[in-house]
Amino acid sequence: MSTADGLLPSWRPGTTRDALLEFLESSSALPVERRLACFDNDGTLWCERPAYPQYDFVVDALRRRSVDDPGLRLRPEFAAVLDEDQAALGDLGLVRVALALVSLFEGLTPEEFVAEVRAFMDRAVNDRLGRPVRTATYQPMLELVDELRRRQFTVAIVSGGGCEFVRAVSRDLYGVPPEAVVGTMIGYTFTRDAAGQPLLRRSSRMVGEVNEGPAKVSAVQTQLGRAPVLAAGNSGGDRELLEWAASGPGPGLALLVDHDDDEREFAYVGSAGSFTDPEPITDVARRLGWTVASMRTDWARVFPDP
Amino acid sequence: MSTADGLLPSWRPGTTRDALLEFLESSSALPVERRLACFDNDGTLWCERPAYPQYDFVVDALRRRSVDDPGLRLRPEFAAVLDEDQAALGDLGLVRVALALVSLFEGLTPEEFVAEVRAFMDRAVNDRLGRPVRTATYQPMLELVDELRRRQFTVAIVSGGGCEFVRAVSRDLYGVPPEAVVGTMIGYTFTRDAAGQPLLRRSSRMVGEVNEGPAKVSAVQTQLGRAPVLAAGNSGGDRELLEWAASGPGPGLALLVDHDDDEREFAYVGSAGSFTDPEPITDVARRLGWTVASMRTDWARVFPDP
Repeated sequence: MSTADGLLPSWRPGTTRDALLEFLESSSALPVERRLACFDNDGTLWCERPAYPQYDFVVDALRRRSVDDPGLRLRPEFAAVLDEDQAALGDLGLVRVALALVSLFEGLTPEEFVAEVRAFMDRAVNDRLGRPVRTATYQPMLELVDELRRRQFTVAIVSGGGCEFVRAVSRDLYGVPPEAVVGTMIGYTFTRDAAGQPLLRRSSRMVGEVNEGPAKVSAVQTQLGRAPVLAAGNSGGDRELLEWAASGPGPGLALLVDHDDDEREFAYVGSAGSFTDPEPITDVARRLGWTVASMRTDWARVFPDP
Repeated sequence: MSTADGLLPSWRPGTTRDALLEFLESSSALPVERRLACFDNDGTLWCERPAYPQYDFVVDALRRRSVDDPGLRLRPEFAAVLDEDQAALGDLGLVRVALALVSLFEGLTPEEFVAEVRAFMDRAVNDRLGRPVRTATYQPMLELVDELRRRQFTVAIVSGGGCEFVRAVSRDLYGVPPEAVVGTMIGYTFTRDAAGQPLLRRSSRMVGEVNEGPAKVSAVQTQLGRAPVLAAGNSGGDRELLEWAASGPGPGLALLVDHDDDEREFAYVGSAGSFTDPEPITDVARRLGWTVASMRTDWARVFPDP
């Protein structure tokens, strides 16, 4: 189709690119208020291996704080993280470790937290890829985001990670403003400074649920006020969101990124279809007729130029 | 100032308009990511007398449902509302009555709820003003909203009312998309339809707190991810939000709408400075140096043309 010339240049010709172009074309029939596209972040917009960038951020923060405050090691969760003691981490459990790490930032103002994330992102490097973390985003997905925005879509990020962590970089990396980022949320405490002015400080209490699975659907409705017509993800935590996007009236697209490229990125099967379902997410995608983006086959390039 | 010619035409010349123009001028120094303006809705963007439009909506819904289901009268909260029994309403208390009314919409999909709000808004009339509710918005505030948006502000609504009620009309009335509406939120239940597709249904459980007072500050940070540099309100429920907007580094404006115009709208003193503080909000405004918009003095016109 001639209107597609030059669109999505990092997507190789094939059925996947055709499906994207067909969706873009048909979306012009949707009223603007229905043009909402939701993207998972880790493994969908940027690389999540060998570790989630947010995990590296909190471990880095723990290391820096433990230099000034060696007593932090007395907390078993922190000792296990600092020692990379997999057995101890397994025994403690992910939730307990995560909540302990969240407490490192308790009392920070939102601005202080954002500054700490941005300072980390300015120096973080993905050693396995040999590139700065901030350039370990997926060029084909950035092109899709831009093309959707050109077509008056609201582009949102719907992450299982910390909402405020993603917001600290979302405008810069993806052009997505903070109100269009939905993630796991830590609450704030309203207080006043010495001059009596309002001041928020981070707590270590979670607001709502961990933003994975069905919670992503409820959170999008609650925070964005409508259903997406396009959703992109790469794991079981995105399953319900993708099903939701594909099931509305009119055009709908569920896009799954398949990490099958051991040479340019990493090869791994996305986690199971849901937390309790062992079916691989790639099988779920094929069974439900989702559009699958094979990193190896469909992407002419993976990362943006430095 | 010559650049101000033609700006805010429904605002009469004077110190209030000057303060707005000065803020608009100085806001160009702010990075775009800090250009967030938060407006209360009831009594700030549209008329809240003789009753909140949302209250009229739920009472209307109750009346219509009670025609088909006379048994609804057996619930004391509903009987009190249907009979306009002020003594019974007082005995039951606002929270209990409000939660009962919320339960009327339990089980609706988000789309069904929006359709019901829009159908109501298409027929609702403010009898005291003799005009449709949807045109009982304040023309001077609409001009301010438009001017802010022209200057790359994100304009948000921060209402004590139901988030989804406001979202059903916010794009149409104010050009504000649903993700920029922060209000009291009723949760959804994730379920699946007969075909196995994801489906959300309204619950009658509140997510978080009633969005008034300090809760407005926390909710703006949580949902919009940053502090406003302009906040406008008209009651004690807006106090902390206005203080917050005025207290950041650089330009900041707190704008209070003073309902002092018995001829064109209603004359009433905004509720107390906070729920526990008897100081009138207009006194708080003068003490804290906020900008006060006197409806009688500062507004050349109150409502838009039909």
